[in-house]
Amino acid sequence: MMNDEFIPYFAVIFTSKRTEIENGYDDMSISMEKLAKQQDGYLGLESARNEVGITVSYWKNLEAIKSWKQHTDHIIAQKKGRSDWYSWYQVRICKVEREYEFIL
Amino acid sequence: MMNDEFIPYFAVIFTSKRTEIENGYDDMSISMEKLAKQQDGYLGLESARNEVGITVSYWKNLEAIKSWKQHTDHIIAQKKGRSDWYSWYQVRICKVEREYEFIL
Repeated sequence: MMNDEFIPYFAVIFTSKRTEIENGYDDMSISMEKLAKQQDGYLGLESARNEVGITVSYWKNLEAIKSWKQHTDHIIAQKKGRSDWYSWYQVRICKVEREYEFIL
Repeated sequence: MMNDEFIPYFAVIFTSKRTEIENGYDDMSISMEKLAKQQDGYLGLESARNEVGITVSYWKNLEAIKSWKQHTDHIIAQKKGRSDWYSWYQVRICKVEREYEFIL
């Protein structure tokens, strides 16, 4: 997924550690990804988890990130994240200044 | 790992898909992480892999990123990456503008 026509665009790097508590985590994870894709200014999302989870979402501008952060369903998920699912997380808002790609 | 005293600092988001070829991948992965940590301007690294692999490394400035990219051993690893280990990868150079953390 190249977004170079949008450069500079923005990335949100969300790194986290999970608790042992499931309590709807998988469902939330799927539905938040679906919902993010429907937001204005959404460009893409990549996610992986081993000891640490890393989700990077890409956005056209900071306004899109702010709107997504304040989306009602997302706020509910954020609260459950702090009460149940995550023992730690960190959010970084970044401006993507350059990108390049290798395809075999 | 908070680096907010260094803001703005820089992140390199490396996303990739692996081939089936092992050929020293695990060893390289460990030694590249060790070597990155010894570089000037290195701030941290996080990594996870499922269908897609995501490695984010953090750096004090763009010069540190450039030096690391041009490190002799790293260049050898990059070549092996293209010939053997990766069917696809993407590199994004980002400026981290804001960060916040949650600790349970």
